[in-house]
Amino acid sequence: MESKQYYPDEFPRNQWYVAARTAEIGQELFPRWLLGEPVVLYRTEDGQPVALADRCPHRQYPLSRGLRVGDEIECGYHGLVFNAEGRCVSVPQQDHIPDHLRARAYPLRERAGLIWIWMGDPARADDSLIPDHSFMASEGWVTVSGTLHMKARAQLMNENLLDLSHLTYLHPTTLGTRQVAYVPAEATWDERRVCVERVMKNIEPPGFFVRAMGLEGQIDRTQLAEFIAPGFHITHVSAKPAGDDDDSRLSQHKVVHGITPETRTTTFYFWAMARDYRIDDPEITSFAQDAQARVFSDDVEACEAIERVLAAYEPGAPTQTNIKVDAGPLQSRRIIERMLADERQGTAEPTRQGAVASVS
Amino acid sequence: MESKQYYPDEFPRNQWYVAARTAEIGQELFPRWLLGEPVVLYRTEDGQPVALADRCPHRQYPLSRGLRVGDEIECGYHGLVFNAEGRCVSVPQQDHIPDHLRARAYPLRERAGLIWIWMGDPARADDSLIPDHSFMASEGWVTVSGTLHMKARAQLMNENLLDLSHLTYLHPTTLGTRQVAYVPAEATWDERRVCVERVMKNIEPPGFFVRAMGLEGQIDRTQLAEFIAPGFHITHVSAKPAGDDDDSRLSQHKVVHGITPETRTTTFYFWAMARDYRIDDPEITSFAQDAQARVFSDDVEACEAIERVLAAYEPGAPTQTNIKVDAGPLQSRRIIERMLADERQGTAEPTRQGAVASVS
Amino acid sequence: MESKQYYPDEFPRNQWYVAARTAEIGQELFPRWLLGEPVVLYRTEDGQPVALADRCPHRQYPLSRGLRVGDEIECGYHGLVFNAEGRCVSVPQQDHIPDHLRARAYPLRERAGLIWIWMGDPARADDSLIPDHSFMASEGWVTVSGTLHMKARAQLMNENLLDLSHLTYLHPTTLGTRQVAYVPAEATWDERRVCVERVMKNIEPPGFFVRAMGLEGQIDRTQLAEFIAPGFHITHVSAKPAGDDDDSRLSQHKVVHGITPETRTTTFYFWAMARDYRIDDPEITSFAQDAQARVFSDDVEACEAIERVLAAYEPGAPTQTNIKVDAGPLQSRRIIERMLADERQGTAEPTRQGAVASVS
Repeated sequence: MESKQYYPDEFPRNQWYVAARTAEIGQELFPRWLLGEPVVLYRTEDGQPVALADRCPHRQYPLSRGLRVGDEIECGYHGLVFNAEGRCVSVPQQDHIPDHLRARAYPLRERAGLIWIWMGDPARADDSLIPDHSFMASEGWVTVSGTLHMKARAQLMNENLLDLSHLTYLHPTTLGTRQVAYVPAEATWDERRVCVERVMKNIEPPGFFVRAMGLEGQIDRTQLAEFIAPGFHITHVSAKPAGDDDDSRLSQHKVVHGITPETRTTTFYFWAMARDYRIDDPEITSFAQDAQARVFSDDVEACEAIERVLAAYEPGAPTQTNIKVDAGPLQSRRIIERMLADERQGTAEPTRQGAVASVS
Repeated sequence: MESKQYYPDEFPRNQWYVAARTAEIGQELFPRWLLGEPVVLYRTEDGQPVALADRCPHRQYPLSRGLRVGDEIECGYHGLVFNAEGRCVSVPQQDHIPDHLRARAYPLRERAGLIWIWMGDPARADDSLIPDHSFMASEGWVTVSGTLHMKARAQLMNENLLDLSHLTYLHPTTLGTRQVAYVPAEATWDERRVCVERVMKNIEPPGFFVRAMGLEGQIDRTQLAEFIAPGFHITHVSAKPAGDDDDSRLSQHKVVHGITPETRTTTFYFWAMARDYRIDDPEITSFAQDAQARVFSDDVEACEAIERVLAAYEPGAPTQTNIKVDAGPLQSRRIIERMLADERQGTAEPTRQGAVASVS
Repeated sequence: MESKQYYPDEFPRNQWYVAARTAEIGQELFPRWLLGEPVVLYRTEDGQPVALADRCPHRQYPLSRGLRVGDEIECGYHGLVFNAEGRCVSVPQQDHIPDHLRARAYPLRERAGLIWIWMGDPARADDSLIPDHSFMASEGWVTVSGTLHMKARAQLMNENLLDLSHLTYLHPTTLGTRQVAYVPAEATWDERRVCVERVMKNIEPPGFFVRAMGLEGQIDRTQLAEFIAPGFHITHVSAKPAGDDDDSRLSQHKVVHGITPETRTTTFYFWAMARDYRIDDPEITSFAQDAQARVFSDDVEACEAIERVLAAYEPGAPTQTNIKVDAGPLQSRRIIERMLADERQGTAEPTRQGAVASVS
């Protein structure tokens, strides 16, 4: 069987990933595997999120099975106590606590509904690398959100989100119409980011838009799929009556997608959709919540179906043939491969946005 | 642990295997893994069966999750369209379609209730190698059939079917009596086929025969287990009142078994039983359907029990000791090993029937 | 990832392990995997327990799926018959039975409610190596017992049982109080055995003692955790009113734990608790049965939680840091490693009790 590797086999580590949605983490200890490591998440009494390696350095018992005492965790097996920085502050019967008796602490940042984690070298954790998604907390926008688990490697979903021609086939009753896949999109990229834009003039509205935006005739519709490596996407969506230049008739979605590896072949999918129209209508909010969850579940199922095929050919991989819509997805692979190569060389300054290349 | 390999680790590919029973395949897309490959089966509008690799050559999405449009399949992920020969005939946004953008098409033949597939070099697909089982569609015979899935390697069932001494122990209430295992059988073979024949005179009838054939006293009974490599069996069965030479009192079964690997350690078992007596009696037909399904399920469970033992010893294998009844089964291993050796040498003309050797 | 092996990867074989509790084995054929081998257990007509390899040497069919005929087993696939020593005494159609056609027979000994198995060289099976647990059948004691299955390697439970500081954290409502973990224990050992003793004076009684022993005020309490390699433990427990030297007020438990590997990462846990107080009170017996089963299930869950972490790091292992309570557990690793090294050198006289070393 062919031995070409199409998908990265490791994860860039000196990067920010979404660890959780704000709403998921409270004061109770919350276990989650991220990038192949067990992590326990919780909040201190003043609400700061904390992430520690979810294995006691004594005998690997998950700290998440222990007891939160104030801002500290008492291990549920032998009673070692760790503070929110991961330092061991108490061992029964023992005055001396070795300095290396630590649970690794991961830098976290909380931004507009998402909790970001840095699982590489903490000294390199650079806040300026966190993608801006402040619109999720902006006035004039209302947000629905959810978390999905996927039995497939993360890159399959990264590529799904960078080629929205799939709406026609995978989401025909909600977001796709027959025409979407036939309108060319333009891909642009830099060292950290890929954008794929599709402008659709005088096109039929899909079911979701009809119901949520109240659009009935032909529309002008845009999609901008933005990927910020290694695992974040913002999908910018707009629609208005065809040919109508009245801005008040413009309806917008901004959808964020945190695609975070759990293991090499399983992934968490954190999503949130903000809209700027009918923001006081709870029925539309409820509809958006349900419809988006269903759409993304279909994406998850599609990636899982591919993963089952890939698994049968490992360690090889069946040959892929690229088509025109793959420009954006292929660039996302290149960026992640470059991040990994940089990390392997140990030179890795985390890559940043730079000059923009383009393909039509 | 011992490292001897008793069972082949690969499948001869330049050979016909049963892919499905006729009744299983309609116009809807039907996914099935065969010989370690995903296959999608369907019928064209004029009823011809088609088999394509069940993975789009673009990104390996299963074509069986797509849409049948006329005789073609539209991929359910990005809309590529493939015709029944596996050629890609449409890619959204794209005029040029590269010639290598193909889903592999597998030669199929439909014969008397079974659909045969050739998963090796299509140029070598030779119809004359398909075993004759036309009796399944002959007048004067009525057939019941079914498909079973087995979590065990195919060769375990090939050997089960070539040593019917097991009827006494595994099927004591239906097909076996205590005497069967004690009557010697004669094994003969050639380059493609193994036959094991057992003639039982003046013997008790088993439960199935009493109920279905209406035999009550002692009987004369014959079994001829015929294996046509790599995965087809016909069991020829006859019974009549002991010593009675009136042909009108003879009842016959012909049972076909298609043993087709799904993966190295899982297998499909396609079975059909034809009988030439009481063919208009629906109650006997219904009884035969249920009783045979139960018998073969017991065989499947036996093979699965062995597979669990084998799995625990891999990559080695626990030592086997052969006994007298193994002559036929051992020849089936030799034939398959020879087929594999021929394929590895690339010389492989598919083997055919030749001179017949014999062991008593 | 770190590649240090903390836990043994094999099992000492020239040793006794608990195969079953007496009550589990009757005349029906009972299958159980032990030390990575399939074993069938049953009793002869005069009640003697028998253990044979649970795979017919012909084609590996589990003998436990066959028929017990007198003291013999008839294989359920092809009818070979094996006697209680594993010798094949009948093969259909065959007068000559090769001498190597045998199912391996394992030496068994039955002692006070437990059946012990020796899975190494039968010639070395030495009864004097079986730990004494005769108190389980002594007058004046009453016993409750059970069998648990654990999806974790055996050594995790061996270490659990040698560090009872965990009672405070894992069993806080039944056996632990906050004080237990803070009372130092003394570890002693020899070539086969580790003892860890904790004497607690004037301490609060745990929930189990309050309910079962009827102790209400402060108590004097002792624990002696005794490990006899490779997989047996006796926990000696006593309690009495604090400062009260009247022996009639002393209540004792002796708990035996047979920790027997099923596979490298799964284990059987055979337990029995004998008590010497209120032995005629069925309500206390019933309470002890339920409470102990729950306690040991919590231990099983803890080991399984650790196993899931370990599995994610294999073939490496995450770094462990030892603390004061690990003296006993670490000695148990050393003893088993030494047993394995002896077996690898082929010199292995099974190790025995010898000079006693000590650590405070």
